[in-house]
Amino acid sequence: MRRMSRLPSPPANQRAVRRHNLGVVLRHVATRGPRSRATIALETGLNKSTVSSLVTELIDRGLLNERGAERRGMVGRPGLVVELTGHGAVGLGLEVGVDYLAVHATDLTGAARHRRLEAGDNRGRPAGAVLDRLGAMARDALADLRAQGLRPAGATVALPGLVDVASGTLIIAPNLRWEDVPATAAIAERLPEPMPIGADNEANLSALAERWEGAGRDLQDFLHVSGEVGVGAGIVLGGELFRGTRGFGGELGHVTVDPGGRPCACGSRGCLETKVGLEALVAAAGAEDAADLLARARGGDAAVAAALREGGRWLGIGAAAVANLLDLQAVVLGGYFATLAEWLRDCVAHELHERVLGPGWAVPGVLASELGPEAAVRGAAAQVLHAVLADPVALGEPLEAAEGASAR
Amino acid sequence: MRRMSRLPSPPANQRAVRRHNLGVVLRHVATRGPRSRATIALETGLNKSTVSSLVTELIDRGLLNERGAERRGMVGRPGLVVELTGHGAVGLGLEVGVDYLAVHATDLTGAARHRRLEAGDNRGRPAGAVLDRLGAMARDALADLRAQGLRPAGATVALPGLVDVASGTLIIAPNLRWEDVPATAAIAERLPEPMPIGADNEANLSALAERWEGAGRDLQDFLHVSGEVGVGAGIVLGGELFRGTRGFGGELGHVTVDPGGRPCACGSRGCLETKVGLEALVAAAGAEDAADLLARARGGDAAVAAALREGGRWLGIGAAAVANLLDLQAVVLGGYFATLAEWLRDCVAHELHERVLGPGWAVPGVLASELGPEAAVRGAAAQVLHAVLADPVALGEPLEAAEGASAR
Repeated sequence: MRRMSRLPSPPANQRAVRRHNLGVVLRHVATRGPRSRATIALETGLNKSTVSSLVTELIDRGLLNERGAERRGMVGRPGLVVELTGHGAVGLGLEVGVDYLAVHATDLTGAARHRRLEAGDNRGRPAGAVLDRLGAMARDALADLRAQGLRPAGATVALPGLVDVASGTLIIAPNLRWEDVPATAAIAERLPEPMPIGADNEANLSALAERWEGAGRDLQDFLHVSGEVGVGAGIVLGGELFRGTRGFGGELGHVTVDPGGRPCACGSRGCLETKVGLEALVAAAGAEDAADLLARARGGDAAVAAALREGGRWLGIGAAAVANLLDLQAVVLGGYFATLAEWLRDCVAHELHERVLGPGWAVPGVLASELGPEAAVRGAAAQVLHAVLADPVALGEPLEAAEGASAR
Repeated sequence: MRRMSRLPSPPANQRAVRRHNLGVVLRHVATRGPRSRATIALETGLNKSTVSSLVTELIDRGLLNERGAERRGMVGRPGLVVELTGHGAVGLGLEVGVDYLAVHATDLTGAARHRRLEAGDNRGRPAGAVLDRLGAMARDALADLRAQGLRPAGATVALPGLVDVASGTLIIAPNLRWEDVPATAAIAERLPEPMPIGADNEANLSALAERWEGAGRDLQDFLHVSGEVGVGAGIVLGGELFRGTRGFGGELGHVTVDPGGRPCACGSRGCLETKVGLEALVAAAGAEDAADLLARARGGDAAVAAALREGGRWLGIGAAAVANLLDLQAVVLGGYFATLAEWLRDCVAHELHERVLGPGWAVPGVLASELGPEAAVRGAAAQVLHAVLADPVALGEPLEAAEGASAR
């Protein structure tokens, strides 16, 4: 903010209005794409000189770039348009999966700037040791981002269990057998610099990723159900993630679908997860592991096909429960269910048609995730960027400006 | 509005503000109870002279009364307080049950002013004939209300199926075997006078009644599950009824709990309704009908007790699915489930403890409805009154004032 620092500070309410309007302009460019200052003024209802000043500040803050537009018509000179920058802010997503750790960094243009995935079973391992490794991966990512001249705006940790979002605590993760892990504090201790850190359930973050940049872009009401060792669900209602008052919603994996069924890691029995969680699928198919399951499915193995049909049937029974309760437009298959969508989709759709009350047109469609197993960690990275879009001032000054300021 | 008619009309935006503020004052008295003009001003932030003028208009409109307050302290004279009137507006609730028709009128003080229930199986009867009878009951009710000097503010029809609230159409009611019945239009044709008429699902209206005047008064997030021939559910989230985008939410009765179970009236199989709908309970208990079931349960009949335990188990499995998905504070047993709560409650609570993921304190409690089988029709009547509270001006002038105006 070099420009503003030469002027006397405006009154607090004027500063608050300007801060709000910086977000309005930044989000407008983020959702509507590159456009001229004049177009932004027209579309937001802000006046031209205000928009011009806001855009200048967002350029100073490193969040917007200015460039010549492509000529669209045959006459007139091409105007200048502003667009989001790749270097202004980058969101860091971190994920503790049941059988992997992942890191993903995304910039404001949506480009991935760092990606790592380490396979390895985390079940029963002490939380401290797992978070040590995730912390090391995060430090590597931060060093790589700094080397690229990028500015990390914060990190969000995706976790496979119930998360108290306000305190950043993992309350319970049945498959990991972890309870009461202060996840954000633990990650903060392991990073070399202070930054905003959040935590959320992986299924919630996957659903947000689908809503923001995946199959749910044009949907208001959908279920994103992701298959991993656990079965997680994120529910989007009216375009927003539904969390429940205490944040414990969306536990589709632990909805009973077969009351007399097998015991589940959660202590109950007959949960959807016992039918269509990855290990249940692998076992039912007589496969060695997930890769073997997929290879045999592709090879046309009849036993694997039958196991996937049966899994799809249970998944459809679970999804139909959600549709009957919540009135959905679509069910998005995520995680391994996206990889296996070719075999699962018709079975899921069949059960929805059989079991959802209402006219045929009200039965939700079945889509495969476009983001696949990376959805949660991408959603985690995107959540950091959404916080920047919500309040660009909170990000602080850009690297050069901050250095300039400290030299003054 | 005799008082205002002597003055020139204020500008449109002033009228809109005053109209809004009339609702603010009326709702304040409705939710906080009788109080003085000065207290209303203090609590709403409106200034004293505005409140005084608004209260005068609400008294003119017949919606508020003024009376001397009881003396609370030993000194000072008792002040005047204003309170809702019993005669200012009455809401008419009409209900088509699967095996009964009901009418209920409630005034603004919450008192019942007219109640009728006619038992009789409506399954497979033509909609026109059933609505003829309900229309006749509604006409009797209106005549009775007029004879009491009361002013009907409108009617809401409770229906046992999917309702398109915007058009007032019953889309499908599996147990009645009705489809595409224009319910509000059909009732309007059968009434002697025009009035606002709405329609809604009976389970939604039951949940609203619980929220407004029943066991859900102090709850933000709960499931109200009502047992009749069908099993209906109303879901309250954040204090508001959840309807789903198209209004098709809450179909807990058609959630599959036993995938290989018996066929259901809806065309699916193993729905919760096939386990714990009233007829399923009666059949499982070897009883003749609902009255016999209740009598034998009270008499300690072992077969009936076993059937109710089994029913409670299935009800708990269904409620646990909702709790896992939506994070509830409580499950309220309504309709026949309230009558049978003594036998069902512990079984439902046990399944919730077994099947809801999360810490013990997060498992929802189980409450019995305080309103019983009348909840839906009372909710229907209350919905009319809530529309009056939302916009008292829409109700029009009181009887006397309207007569005075036509004489001018």
